This record gives sequence, C-alpha cells and structure tokens, in this order.
Amino acid sequence: MQTQWDHRFAQRTQRMKSSTIRELLKITEQADIISFAGGLPAPDVFPVNEFKEACIAVLDNSSTLALQYGATEGIYPLREMITRHALRYGIQITPENVMITSGSQQALDLIGKIFINRGDRILVESPTYLGALQAWNAYGAEYIAIPSDDNGMITDELDKALRCGPKFIYVLPNFQNPTGATMSLERRKKLVELADRYGVPIIEDDPYGQLRFEGEHLPAVEVLDSRTRAANGCYSGNVIYLSTFSKLLAPGLRLAWVVAPPEVISKMVQAKQGADLHTSTFNQMVAYEVAHKGFLDKHVITIRQTYQERRDVMLDALTEHMPEGVRWTHPQGGLFLWATLPQSIDTAELLLSAVKEKVAFVPGGSFHPCGGGTNTMRLNFSYSKPEMINEGIARLGRVIKQQLN
Amino acid sequence: MQTQWDHRFAQRTQRMKSSTIRELLKITEQADIISFAGGLPAPDVFPVNEFKEACIAVLDNSSTLALQYGATEGIYPLREMITRHALRYGIQITPENVMITSGSQQALDLIGKIFINRGDRILVESPTYLGALQAWNAYGAEYIAIPSDDNGMITDELDKALRCGPKFIYVLPNFQNPTGATMSLERRKKLVELADRYGVPIIEDDPYGQLRFEGEHLPAVEVLDSRTRAANGCYSGNVIYLSTFSKLLAPGLRLAWVVAPPEVISKMVQAKQGADLHTSTFNQMVAYEVAHKGFLDKHVITIRQTYQERRDVMLDALTEHMPEGVRWTHPQGGLFLWATLPQSIDTAELLLSAVKEKVAFVPGGSFHPCGGGTNTMRLNFSYSKPEMINEGIARLGRVIKQQLN
Repeated sequence: MQTQWDHRFAQRTQRMKSSTIRELLKITEQADIISFAGGLPAPDVFPVNEFKEACIAVLDNSSTLALQYGATEGIYPLREMITRHALRYGIQITPENVMITSGSQQALDLIGKIFINRGDRILVESPTYLGALQAWNAYGAEYIAIPSDDNGMITDELDKALRCGPKFIYVLPNFQNPTGATMSLERRKKLVELADRYGVPIIEDDPYGQLRFEGEHLPAVEVLDSRTRAANGCYSGNVIYLSTFSKLLAPGLRLAWVVAPPEVISKMVQAKQGADLHTSTFNQMVAYEVAHKGFLDKHVITIRQTYQERRDVMLDALTEHMPEGVRWTHPQGGLFLWATLPQSIDTAELLLSAVKEKVAFVPGGSFHPCGGGTNTMRLNFSYSKPEMINEGIARLGRVIKQQLN
Repeated sequence: MQTQWDHRFAQRTQRMKSSTIRELLKITEQADIISFAGGLPAPDVFPVNEFKEACIAVLDNSSTLALQYGATEGIYPLREMITRHALRYGIQITPENVMITSGSQQALDLIGKIFINRGDRILVESPTYLGALQAWNAYGAEYIAIPSDDNGMITDELDKALRCGPKFIYVLPNFQNPTGATMSLERRKKLVELADRYGVPIIEDDPYGQLRFEGEHLPAVEVLDSRTRAANGCYSGNVIYLSTFSKLLAPGLRLAWVVAPPEVISKMVQAKQGADLHTSTFNQMVAYEVAHKGFLDKHVITIRQTYQERRDVMLDALTEHMPEGVRWTHPQGGLFLWATLPQSIDTAELLLSAVKEKVAFVPGGSFHPCGGGTNTMRLNFSYSKPEMINEGIARLGRVIKQQLN
C-alpha cells in the first residue's frame, strides 16, 4: 500500500536495498541455526576483562573528556597509536593522515560522499565487499567489475578498464571479503603502477590484514605506492587505506580508521561533521586504554590461533562432506572462504533449503555488482565453534547432494 | 596548492564547509578562554558512577551481545524503553516506530539521504540549527527561511512558503537552538494544520524538550498531529520526531533516536546500513542499563536545576554588563540564549576582539540559511560554571562597549 510518504522519498532511495547479509543476521538469531552467513568475529575471543578495566580507568581518570563532545577527526592519542602501528608495517604517516570513523562502513560512506558524482564508475573486484556497493549505490555509482582468482584481482584486465575513466579503484588485498583470496605481490605492484600511470586513486580496504595464519606478510598497496612516489619525488600518495578495530577488538564499539593525504582527510572531516559530528569519545578512549600498552599484539595471536583452527576444521569438513564438483578457496587468513558449486545450482534458492536444515550461508550473487556468481557462496569460519562448523558443513553437504540428485 | 586529489572531489563537496562551531571548539580547548560558543552539556552533571556500574554490569552479564555486531535499527530493549517514555508525553507509538541513531546529527543526515533530491527546498526557521543545514547541504538542499520571534516560527508566514512546494518543514519547538525560543501552542496547532493541508511532512527536532526550568510543558507537534489524524481516521502520521541522550546522559556516547511511521523507519534503516551498519551495541546497552530503572527521571531534575541556575546567572550578568541597545531572549529551558546587538556591530568581526579578551560565542550569521543576523550571537549557558559565566559576560560587555564607542 502506498502512503503519503512513498512519493516523497529521494530518487537515490530506489537503489537502496536492505542488505541480504543484514537480513540474514535475523535468521542467525534463531538459536538452532548454524550460521556461516554473518561476518561475525568469535565472541569467545572478546577481551572482556580488559574492556572492563579500561572502562573503569577511563571513567575514573578522564570522564569529563570521555563523555563529552569531541573533535571530528578523533582523539589524538588513538590517532597517534594508529600512526605508530602503521609505521611498523612501513606505512609512513603522521597523525594528521589519520581519521577515526564509526566503523569502516562509515569510511566507505564518506568516501562515496566526497568522491562520487551520480554516474561515476568505480572499478571493483568481482566479487567484492557488499557493504561498499551498498554505501556507494546511494551516491549513484556505477561499477566496472574486474574478475579475480585465487591471487586476487586479475590485473591483466586492468588496462582496458582504466581507460573507461573510473573515479577510483577499490580493492581488499588481504583475505578478501567474500572470497578469502590474497592479492599476490606481483599483482599489487602492477595495480600500483597502472593506477599511477592513469592517475586513478586506489581505496585499499584492509580489515583483516593482521589476521594471517600462514604464509608471508605482503606489503600494503599503500606502501608500494609510497615507494613509487618517493622515487618520483612526489609525496602526496595515491592510496586511501582503511582498517578497523572490529576484527581486532570488538565490532560492537564501531571503531575504524582512514589513512589518507591531508587534503582528503580534510574533506572527509567536513563530511563526517555533517554525518555524525564525531565517533563516540568514550569508545575511542576505551579502545586506546585496552590497546596502547601492547595488549593488542598478544591478543592478535590468540585470534589468529582460534580462527586458524576453525578454518582448518571447515576445510576438513568440506573435504569430507562436499560432493564432487564443489570447489572452495584456501584462505591464508581472515574470516571467510568461498565455495563454487556446479553451474546448475542457484545458491539463492539453495539457501531456502539450507535454512530448513538449520544451516545458513550468504549466496554469492549479491557480491557481483555486474551479475554472475549465482552458483557461489560465502562461508564464515570465525564465528561458530569447531564442532558446530563440522556439523553445519555436514548439513550443507546433504542439502547440496539433494539438489544435485 | 592544487593536488591530484582536488579535481576528483564530488560536486557536492563544494557546499561542504567546516562548521564554524566545530572550528570554534578548538578555541575553547585553550584553557584560559571562557567559551559560550559550544553546545556542550555541563560535565559536572555527567553520571560517572552510574556509567561505571552500567559498564561493569553489561560486560559481566551480556558481553557477547554488547561487543558484537547488532541490528541496524538498534537494540530492542532500548527502543522499547524509548517507546514507554514517549507514551508518557502522549506520543502513541510502538518500538517499530523507533530507530537508534549515532547522535541526532546522524538522524538529520539520514533524513537528507532518504528525502532530498538536489534542488529540493526545505522550509526552516530563521535562524535554525546549523548542523541540519550542514547535513542537508551535502544533498543539494535549498532553503526557504521563515522568520521567528520569541514564540518561535512565525506561522503567519507559512501559507505563502508552503505554496513553493517544500519537501518538508524543519522545526525545533522547544528552547530552540540557537535562539532558546519556544514555539507557542497556538503556533504549533497552526503549523500542524497547515502542514496537513498542504501535505508537507514535519521534522520535529527535540533535543532539549525535557530540560524545561519554568512554564508549562507544551504538547509535541507530533502529538498535535496525531490528534488531527485520529480525528480524520488516518493513522500514518505526518511528523518525524527526533530526540537524543546527548543532553540527558552524555554526548560522548553518540546516542539518539528517531520516531517515525514504519515506512520511513524502513527506508532510514536501509540508509543507515550503508552509513555505519549500526550504532555501538555496547553504548546502547550501557545507556539502557543506566536509564531503565528510573535513574533518568531523577537525573533530569539535577540537570534542570544546574542549567536554570546558570541561565539565571547569565541573565543577571547580561543586565549588569551589557550596554544599551543589546537585547536577549529569556529561554524557559535548554542550553542557549540569543543576543541581538545594535545593527552597526558585525558579530563575526566582534568575535576576533572577544577572543583576544578570552571570551567566545557563536556569531549569529551562520544560523541564517538565507542571510541576515550579522548583529546576533548565540550564548551557551550550560557549560561554564556560574562564576565563569559572570566573568565571561563582563568581558563580552567590555568588548561590545569598545566597539560601540
């Protein structure tokens, strides 16, 4: 039924849809479903005691700052801590290059707000992170999809796409959401070189970079770009780098950060003022209190061990329970792996049968901005405990076999 | 100096400017300035012990929920508490009409996102809340300014303005920011009647409604609208109502709420998914824990007493220190009063002299979307302690007298 409101909504709302993933979260709230659908960190590794101590310390020592309005760019000590941390990974910045956001989702929204004119083309991996598409659809973005494989975006396809004049390139180089794939060093170099040649900026989204279980750490695209620029005598940088505390501490705090050249930070601060004034001062101070004395380094090791174990359980269970013709990725870190089913199976339809068997995943189609991937699915291995992962994959295997028969 | 980034920013960024108020916050950080500039609540009434107990309780009993991702619309217990509270003021809703936002600023941003097409006209009081203009400028809004006086928006001017086809009407009926004026009952009724006749929705922004020091509570525009609708047999409502915990508990939590018809809430939830996924679950649970057992009712009385005392000190100081030709409002609640100086004084220029004398305010011009008000200023009386208010107004009086001589 149309109401008086419906004809008043702005044109851009026609492209806003409720995310399939967010709607699925509602299913996962049913206690008897084993859900591989969300992107939830394991609650068993939340550092609850450290949070409690930090809350008490912040309220005992700094309540008038912590509970008050704060600066839009975020509190200085946290931005300085992030700077120090980035330097360890070769990202050469000062706190003036750092802005705190209300989760990485807000960083994506603000990037859309300051860069995207209606009809602008954004160059993305296919499949890519759904939240980015959701944020940028509201600004009227169009997409150029570059196919990817086990080594990330296939950069051989970049040249042609860059000649279509994209506004920027969006990549998740480490343990990508949704595929779990990591972009090879060779491709990272190629990406930086081509982006520089065509003068197209790169948005590097790196929520999982520290959650590597195996293999060697690869330099961030930002670092490779800086090396090129230093060589060219130009220091302004071609990369906006995003990361978050959601996977290192807890997503319930809604804390993330952007690293960018000062002129970009300045525009993002203006956009953030209009969007939410600033991110919770209290949460920023609590995160700083938890993290700054070196706790984060120890805690990351715990998370890696937990997630590696769960990934291994899921990989073993897939080998045991999946019928022939099903393939999956072997992520070296992160939270997700990606399964490809025989072409005959539509995973969006499969989900309905799966939910009846009390198991859930995210159908892969929605991660493809230009179509395709209807026989793929994203599986999260971080949230469920090992015994549940095994049982869930067994259920999923049965559902797929039924479908194939 | 232009960099490679500058030509890439979207068209809408040309209308984004850093808010004068936010920039002024940086001045107020200098310890020796007496600032009437910010809209800061008094830190001495932050319920620090209650927050501490609440943090401990939430982390002891509900850490896996509090630190995890949550539903975009907000946690149900908080939405239910807000529903119960609204009912006491005659706002007849269910939790399905309530969405939690990251401060009221986010509610304003999301309203812009779902309603405003470039060039849409928004009908606002003049002067009006700067944060709303800042949020909506990014969506290409134009403004129709309705003059106001001590009884709020002059509704006699509404008829003509409504015939220009505004997208919606934006009002702050209680202790308005920036003037401190309260809209009379007669004008509220007139506003509801005219908005209904022309089919134009109303955004009612009510951050300070509970902070009344004197006079009788007036029914919300939402309540008057519902009465009309019930009489007409139509229940969908013509008002979106906003309020916040920033002035009742603490702004550092970034917690506010929207009350709206379900079809509006549904669109706002979609927009919020793309903007920041959801508001901090932890902060929502802490606010619920602090508030739900009746603490808020007692606490509001403390805030009222504190602010009333400070308002009275400021009113007395103004009488004592201001030269002839300066007028000011007598707000019945809230955080601000509004001073009008002789026409010859430009308060934006006056501010430079004032800061040298270590006192700050917000020049009134920026609150006027269509120009004017260059001889006005907003004075905040909630933040500074009484002795500082007196000293600050004395300094301000001296600066104005110098200017007049």
